[in-house]
Amino acid sequence: MKKIIIASTSTVHGSEYLEYIKEELFSFFENTKTIVFIPYARPGGISHDDYTATAAKAFKEMQKEVIGLHTFQDPVKAIQEADAVFTGGGNTFLLVSQLYKNGLMEVLRERVLNGLLYLGTSAGSNITGQTMQTTNDMPIIYPPSFKTLGLVPFNINPHYLDPIEGSTHMGETRETRIKEFHKFNDTVVIGLREGSWLRVDGDEIVLKGKLPARIFKAGEEAFEVPAGEQIKI
Amino acid sequence: MKKIIIASTSTVHGSEYLEYIKEELFSFFENTKTIVFIPYARPGGISHDDYTATAAKAFKEMQKEVIGLHTFQDPVKAIQEADAVFTGGGNTFLLVSQLYKNGLMEVLRERVLNGLLYLGTSAGSNITGQTMQTTNDMPIIYPPSFKTLGLVPFNINPHYLDPIEGSTHMGETRETRIKEFHKFNDTVVIGLREGSWLRVDGDEIVLKGKLPARIFKAGEEAFEVPAGEQIKI
Repeated sequence: MKKIIIASTSTVHGSEYLEYIKEELFSFFENTKTIVFIPYARPGGISHDDYTATAAKAFKEMQKEVIGLHTFQDPVKAIQEADAVFTGGGNTFLLVSQLYKNGLMEVLRERVLNGLLYLGTSAGSNITGQTMQTTNDMPIIYPPSFKTLGLVPFNINPHYLDPIEGSTHMGETRETRIKEFHKFNDTVVIGLREGSWLRVDGDEIVLKGKLPARIFKAGEEAFEVPAGEQIKI
Repeated sequence: MKKIIIASTSTVHGSEYLEYIKEELFSFFENTKTIVFIPYARPGGISHDDYTATAAKAFKEMQKEVIGLHTFQDPVKAIQEADAVFTGGGNTFLLVSQLYKNGLMEVLRERVLNGLLYLGTSAGSNITGQTMQTTNDMPIIYPPSFKTLGLVPFNINPHYLDPIEGSTHMGETRETRIKEFHKFNDTVVIGLREGSWLRVDGDEIVLKGKLPARIFKAGEEAFEVPAGEQIKI
């Protein structure tokens, strides 16, 4: 049975890395000693080592060992043998490029569908969807495809932002962008606000955190799902 | 000699489509009767016809006829024979996909380098750069390449936004995104604020409008160029 946490962000304003979701992670990783960390999204371009150190620090007090996927000679084998995987945020184009380059997309998908524990934040959540086409990131590298893990029957828009009232900026709002996506694609999009996450247990998907999520379906008005409710697509 | 206007946006807050730049356009298109409009970027997913009507309306009082490129049976021939081209904003991924699909990237580049008047706004400005990799748009469609017209020796970031002071949102600022781009690419990036445009006459590139532009070079601190100054890369 698949067991996944899809978090909008790693960090909420004014708190430490992963702190807001610590309790959930503690129970999620209860029977796990070691977590393989996928650092490929490299936020701000930091190194794989530095990024892994950040993740390791957050999990240290939970007595979990975090090992960077980049330190394995054979990353495919590392995923095949992992007990749990955490993919951190950063740039989704870079993350997806590296997953394809290392031949990891299929093996990661297969293993998570068969019960490998998976935690994603931001870009790491984006890739749990059908495609990465609702990322907010800049296309700093050209990936071989926009197709992602397809662990859930929708796409994620992490860091979902409501329109800023009174803004004079003429760039598109997040909602406008997602509506543009739906002119050309049918995949449902979940706008996950910061501090929200989806907990997936098999076919049950529950919205957790304090805020509602915004659901976008092609050709329909967007609507809100309250925290604590199941997501039914 | 190439003659290009690269505008951050079509519209500034509280004014009509292209109104803020009307005077410049009047002199730029002085000897032109007809402008071929490239509506491929389809902002908000509107139709090619509707989008062309918006552009036509703005140019009507300047006594210019605007013809949508989508109405020509042979778009390559239309570009070969055009006196002037205007590419409107919208989604850059869609625009670039359509330009490649219709075999227009090379002919448009060749003709603009040889003097075809070119006006771009937003996505239409993005494609004047070396690549579309500093767009703000959502990847709603997978283009065959991120390479664009390369009419200027840098990339454009249109609708450039300064960090919002006191923001509690954890998504990346525009500057952070451009810095990430520079971890993997060397191309200089010009952050063009709304209401700014570049006027290109041969090798001379002047920043116009009221605001400074922000210049990003890989491995260097970003800096500002004041309005009215030449851009020298």
